[in-house]
Amino acid sequence: MAYNLLKGKKGIIFGALDENSIAWKTAERVHEEGGSFVLTNAPIAMRMGQINALAEKTGSQIIPADATSEEDLENLISQSMEILGGKLDFVLHSIGMSVNVRKGRHYTDEKYDWTAKGWEVSALSFHKVMQGLYKADAMNPWGSIVALTYMAAQRTFPDYNDMADNKAYLESVARSFGYFFGKEKQVRVNTISQSPTPTTAGQGVKGFDAFINYAEKMSPLGNATAQDCADYTVSLFSDLTRKVTMQNLFHDGGFSATGVSQEIIETFGDS
Amino acid sequence: MAYNLLKGKKGIIFGALDENSIAWKTAERVHEEGGSFVLTNAPIAMRMGQINALAEKTGSQIIPADATSEEDLENLISQSMEILGGKLDFVLHSIGMSVNVRKGRHYTDEKYDWTAKGWEVSALSFHKVMQGLYKADAMNPWGSIVALTYMAAQRTFPDYNDMADNKAYLESVARSFGYFFGKEKQVRVNTISQSPTPTTAGQGVKGFDAFINYAEKMSPLGNATAQDCADYTVSLFSDLTRKVTMQNLFHDGGFSATGVSQEIIETFGDS
Amino acid sequence: MAYNLLKGKKGIIFGALDENSIAWKTAERVHEEGGSFVLTNAPIAMRMGQINALAEKTGSQIIPADATSEEDLENLISQSMEILGGKLDFVLHSIGMSVNVRKGRHYTDEKYDWTAKGWEVSALSFHKVMQGLYKADAMNPWGSIVALTYMAAQRTFPDYNDMADNKAYLESVARSFGYFFGKEKQVRVNTISQSPTPTTAGQGVKGFDAFINYAEKMSPLGNATAQDCADYTVSLFSDLTRKVTMQNLFHDGGFSATGVSQEIIETFGDS
Amino acid sequence: MAYNLLKGKKGIIFGALDENSIAWKTAERVHEEGGSFVLTNAPIAMRMGQINALAEKTGSQIIPADATSEEDLENLISQSMEILGGKLDFVLHSIGMSVNVRKGRHYTDEKYDWTAKGWEVSALSFHKVMQGLYKADAMNPWGSIVALTYMAAQRTFPDYNDMADNKAYLESVARSFGYFFGKEKQVRVNTISQSPTPTTAGQGVKGFDAFINYAEKMSPLGNATAQDCADYTVSLFSDLTRKVTMQNLFHDGGFSATGVSQEIIETFGDS
Repeated sequence: MAYNLLKGKKGIIFGALDENSIAWKTAERVHEEGGSFVLTNAPIAMRMGQINALAEKTGSQIIPADATSEEDLENLISQSMEILGGKLDFVLHSIGMSVNVRKGRHYTDEKYDWTAKGWEVSALSFHKVMQGLYKADAMNPWGSIVALTYMAAQRTFPDYNDMADNKAYLESVARSFGYFFGKEKQVRVNTISQSPTPTTAGQGVKGFDAFINYAEKMSPLGNATAQDCADYTVSLFSDLTRKVTMQNLFHDGGFSATGVSQEIIETFGDS
Repeated sequence: MAYNLLKGKKGIIFGALDENSIAWKTAERVHEEGGSFVLTNAPIAMRMGQINALAEKTGSQIIPADATSEEDLENLISQSMEILGGKLDFVLHSIGMSVNVRKGRHYTDEKYDWTAKGWEVSALSFHKVMQGLYKADAMNPWGSIVALTYMAAQRTFPDYNDMADNKAYLESVARSFGYFFGKEKQVRVNTISQSPTPTTAGQGVKGFDAFINYAEKMSPLGNATAQDCADYTVSLFSDLTRKVTMQNLFHDGGFSATGVSQEIIETFGDS
Repeated sequence: MAYNLLKGKKGIIFGALDENSIAWKTAERVHEEGGSFVLTNAPIAMRMGQINALAEKTGSQIIPADATSEEDLENLISQSMEILGGKLDFVLHSIGMSVNVRKGRHYTDEKYDWTAKGWEVSALSFHKVMQGLYKADAMNPWGSIVALTYMAAQRTFPDYNDMADNKAYLESVARSFGYFFGKEKQVRVNTISQSPTPTTAGQGVKGFDAFINYAEKMSPLGNATAQDCADYTVSLFSDLTRKVTMQNLFHDGGFSATGVSQEIIETFGDS
Repeated sequence: MAYNLLKGKKGIIFGALDENSIAWKTAERVHEEGGSFVLTNAPIAMRMGQINALAEKTGSQIIPADATSEEDLENLISQSMEILGGKLDFVLHSIGMSVNVRKGRHYTDEKYDWTAKGWEVSALSFHKVMQGLYKADAMNPWGSIVALTYMAAQRTFPDYNDMADNKAYLESVARSFGYFFGKEKQVRVNTISQSPTPTTAGQGVKGFDAFINYAEKMSPLGNATAQDCADYTVSLFSDLTRKVTMQNLFHDGGFSATGVSQEIIETFGDS
């Protein structure tokens, strides 16, 4: 169902890899709600994904950009404004990657070149995106910038590895930059702390299936899906949420506020 | 601007006193978005307010109810379902009152009968409303219950008095009941932690003008108004936020995530 | 092992019922560290407990007091200062009781007279104790007031019932009163959020054994015991922690910062 | 006053530059409490500081180490165990530096090489220290690791710049590594979130005096000093706090739990 919530709004969506991606679902929903956007992803991710199909479906153009490259980002921003015909109203940052996770290095045995690479891609890239937007004065007043994060930034999940620390940095960047974007440009910046989601990226984390299962049992409303997240992101891009900023918003069926659920505790009972 | 976000949705709105009320603004916005509802308030508040004008404007009926009376609430819920023709999709709890504040008793010199009264009206009433809804099985799946709160529940504002403690209790009730409402009824429960708002009730707090002024200077996007809050509440009643539950959501222009603003700090500068 | 950390310090300890009580262990440790104190408990609790043995062991006097009675508290405070020969340096509030829990009423089916009783005993009593101390000017500068609480105030544990809401109120009282006690009297006020502890009171909660077991597996250092809590409380009464105030301090072997432990997640794995 | 709280305990203290340093005060207090330790700092910091005087006063040896160098840290750890005659019981990480701050680059105009350098020194170094300790199995059971941080990790202070994000990363590392150090080695890891402190490093931040002044007025007990912090750190190194882990502990006279103080609000009053 569509409401025309984003009619006339323009933006950039980072990180749509394939139809399991939250960014992919979000792009579809934004399109349904009347928004127009440029799609972007790292050149390497684009070769693996099916982003062309998404671009066609949503009438969007694609501009490859390495989110760790200031130059690529500058180019992306200026081209996006040209293509879309003006300043931007929304940006979605859905980028994350840990080399330590990919290569199976334990958190207590990190290879620091890889740690630095993961931090640069997953966390610092959000600063670079915002600094690019800020310097180019590319956001309209009451625009909305959203990045996706995970609760490991607050509580330890042993297999989440250095992505926990990257997400903590990312959430801090949202607050720090959100202050200046709010004061100077009337733009809001928030992070969505999403349930574990079986995206192609998420599934790379060790023990992911067991964890999805556990989270489902812990969350009073069940896990939030990628589709749910797309809906929620639309609400944060809309004019209904103009005064929400510098927040980390849990979108997780209640997991974050549940100490333990009945189903979990029963596993540890008498019998 | 309206989007038909709440088309066909039914609910109850507590606490519309006059056009400064957040509940009043919310009722207007819900009506614009296609929702229908019953308005309710304490009999005494209704005599002072102009709720009839709101009812007329929104095509709503009014059912007086003392939110501390289980009997009144039962009656309200059953009549509302009858009037609206079915189960409910949304409920707004916007009720708060401290006798200690009204009578000018300092927090270190509380009169405990008054403390108990304020707790019953401001905090326990939210449990009573939800218990009434739960027992009557009055909520549709994916319904949404929202209560208004204030950041004094997390950090002390010296003039906010025992309302701080009442709000902390209220927020806890949202989580505690949200667990069961989620698991058993697929209903979400959240609180909105709103900027200080110059409602008729808010203005009763000592030093309120200075505080509004301070909060405006501390919030990167400025204070959220009652109208902003109505918009935000609409988003939480809509289907876009189905997996957000048991959360306390700051809607405050960034105040809660700001340690100090440039304007505030300059007041304490060199000269 | 003792360090003379509390040499010359005087105080009041509420809530020592039997040797499983955290207050009991704390009294023993405070005595070892050179502190002197008055023991107090509700008249009814005293009949059930063995507080006389503790008084004898620690050279303390006992003054019964109903912590919901302002009169009893005034008497307790003035007599304590007389017995101990001066103002107080520390106070421990370890009081909690829910009639709904005791009588097996579910959270969605509360009996509100019982809810009010539990709130008065478990939460409002902390305000009454502090208001009594404040009005009598009974605390020395750099004194320390501690109350015990539980993480259910932040996240729902389904069997913890209305005690969750009471603890949220209690923690708010610590902050609210802590502000004034800090500003006016240079006294600190904090709450310790303790692991589930097999005290006589704790064991009354349904499903408590399963929960202790679960918490043990979730906490990287294992559950904090009553003895551990006594040690920690000593540190908060000592001069080493003078600038810690208005905080809720988790003392739980890391439970609160653990999203899930390896042992828990393995329960939900492939096999 | 000393209590023998750390008698027989051994450790490493990073970051004592001069007598304004928190690490300097901590070293003195640890020495008074009977602990022995190795002092370390970056070679460049050592040339500027007076660490020799501290070493002499406390009977300690100095081992220079660049906390970004795994090799230096390995050497430091193995030599420290040799000098002290066994495994370690405590470690203090008090290291922080932002090139962007030093060079006056605004947060919205970061130079990313400098950002990476600051992150490496201020945040990643804590992981490197712990990974070094973990791999060398250098900590005794019930050992305690503490890092210093600042509340900018939770709320924005406009002049704190990228140090805010570095501190958020550092605090996350404490939780993430604290999980494994707890489970595998029975060692606790915490961060102390200290009041703004007029150390030589702190004073480098723009607008620091105004901020100290503001924080003093906001904190019910006043700002915590470096000396206070040394006391508090001693309590966290002692056996009294064995079950506190993965926590970020505010040591700030109540600042973090104060929404606004009377003194601040009066500045925004009627006149």
